[in-house]
Amino acid sequence: MDFDRELKKKVSQVEETIKKYLPKEDGVQKSLLEAMNYSFLAGGKRLRPLLMSECYRMAGGTEEVIEPFMAAQEMIHTYSLVHDDLPAMDNDLYRRGKKTTHAVYGEAMAILAGDGLLNYAFETACRAFSLKGGEEEGSDAASGKQECSAARIGGALKILAEKAGIYGMIGGQAVDVEAEKRKLRLDGEKLLFIHVHKTAALIQSSMMIGAYLAGADEKFVQDMEKAGYAIGVAFQIQDDILDITSTLEELGKPVGSDEKNDKLTYVSVYGLERSKQDVERLSDEALEILKSVSQRNEFLEELIISLITRRK
Amino acid sequence: MDFDRELKKKVSQVEETIKKYLPKEDGVQKSLLEAMNYSFLAGGKRLRPLLMSECYRMAGGTEEVIEPFMAAQEMIHTYSLVHDDLPAMDNDLYRRGKKTTHAVYGEAMAILAGDGLLNYAFETACRAFSLKGGEEEGSDAASGKQECSAARIGGALKILAEKAGIYGMIGGQAVDVEAEKRKLRLDGEKLLFIHVHKTAALIQSSMMIGAYLAGADEKFVQDMEKAGYAIGVAFQIQDDILDITSTLEELGKPVGSDEKNDKLTYVSVYGLERSKQDVERLSDEALEILKSVSQRNEFLEELIISLITRRK
Repeated sequence: MDFDRELKKKVSQVEETIKKYLPKEDGVQKSLLEAMNYSFLAGGKRLRPLLMSECYRMAGGTEEVIEPFMAAQEMIHTYSLVHDDLPAMDNDLYRRGKKTTHAVYGEAMAILAGDGLLNYAFETACRAFSLKGGEEEGSDAASGKQECSAARIGGALKILAEKAGIYGMIGGQAVDVEAEKRKLRLDGEKLLFIHVHKTAALIQSSMMIGAYLAGADEKFVQDMEKAGYAIGVAFQIQDDILDITSTLEELGKPVGSDEKNDKLTYVSVYGLERSKQDVERLSDEALEILKSVSQRNEFLEELIISLITRRK
Repeated sequence: MDFDRELKKKVSQVEETIKKYLPKEDGVQKSLLEAMNYSFLAGGKRLRPLLMSECYRMAGGTEEVIEPFMAAQEMIHTYSLVHDDLPAMDNDLYRRGKKTTHAVYGEAMAILAGDGLLNYAFETACRAFSLKGGEEEGSDAASGKQECSAARIGGALKILAEKAGIYGMIGGQAVDVEAEKRKLRLDGEKLLFIHVHKTAALIQSSMMIGAYLAGADEKFVQDMEKAGYAIGVAFQIQDDILDITSTLEELGKPVGSDEKNDKLTYVSVYGLERSKQDVERLSDEALEILKSVSQRNEFLEELIISLITRRK
């Protein structure tokens, strides 16, 4: 398998899929829709919908029902960046080498574009209810297709909401923001809380929803939650490492910006060597879990390895 | 019927119900949860969950399934106020005579508390999936209870999300904000768009979800949408009228604050008399619709009348 080529192809497919779910830029509220789509289309690795799609396939899923959830997850990820960049938060004017939403559309519209993306994520995921075949779960003997029940879609919505919310991503974000505003000296435990919630939670829900919507059993979904934890935390530590070691060209944001803002990172708590070791250890754990589930997905394993060796 | 006494009793019941769904204020992210609960408990008429509950009863509903939706709707309403009050938006330090969320917890935490409330609204509504009896809709012969199917809960979630989103409340909010920031001179049509979306949309979804979850047919739900339109717009025009004519004591915010901010209102476009007539006309329309549905609800009719004669 030529991983880089495969990755490019798959990301491009994911991009096509999730773009279909964006709102059309017309109507009286056109500026809002433009600001939302600008934020959504400003690049990004599309890692979360890609992981969701791969776990869905790995667990045997073949239906369209996964698509609105892929788009919804990327909308949630995007809104969190839009609000994170606001002047009252990280006050960033650039992200991925492009102007942030408030830098282009103003602060008020950026707040609303973020709200709009979060709300539209749930609106979009709800479209899965119209895609499903019927009220009862089961296979259609004639077509051989598996149908996803309304109850199962409801369960996936619950995972989506919980991992994005106050006991997931927003919870981590709040602890991060509070520590920065009050210049609190975080210990390793609190920093891990931030990484687990702010970053890993959406990785977890991506993998869990993929498996769950494909009809996987509870053990499989729990395994995805564990793997998502390891991947998410490793990914964030790698981000902290890159912030110290990378260049502007590679990263698309000023180098050492975390350090400049006097922000506590995994590297500043544990040092560079220990941080690198932890990334490897966590990645190994994730790979172990993936190899243990019934259906192997070689691409997914390569993807996780690539996340720890990434240079940007 | 002693309406005032009945209203007080019902609002107090609604208050008890929706408070049960608030997050407990503990954990590492405690400050976030405190800011959310502060915003939610800072008073308010609880009009939306009250309307939802009344329409549910009117359409024959008797189950607990309505409760998480009542709480979710009030969370959505609350988050919209928290974000609306932010410095980049209306920049208000007081609401209902109390300090606004950012005035107490700071701007960053207010942004996150709003995000948290919006996300938690969907998390809360998803709890309805666990309350329901089974996958199939129908009555339980032994208990005589109606069970709400997962598909029906999914449909209610869709209404909740759509009316709160970019084609509902956030859409109206965006047009309002854009007009203010650019000092655009709005015409009556655009102002109506704002009132219909920013205010009426959540009134509509409250009434529609109430009827829908009780198992009402399509015509009934559409009637609720029409009535909610009339009530919502009348309510907002009455708000504009009160802003001109009321006193600080009655309203809990500076009198004429809209005028001071040079904000276009229904009164400044159409004049006080025409505005008063339109409130009456719209209220009559709403009452007509309510009287036409099979099950009359006297309290609901009185409630709508009270909304047009309110002094604050």
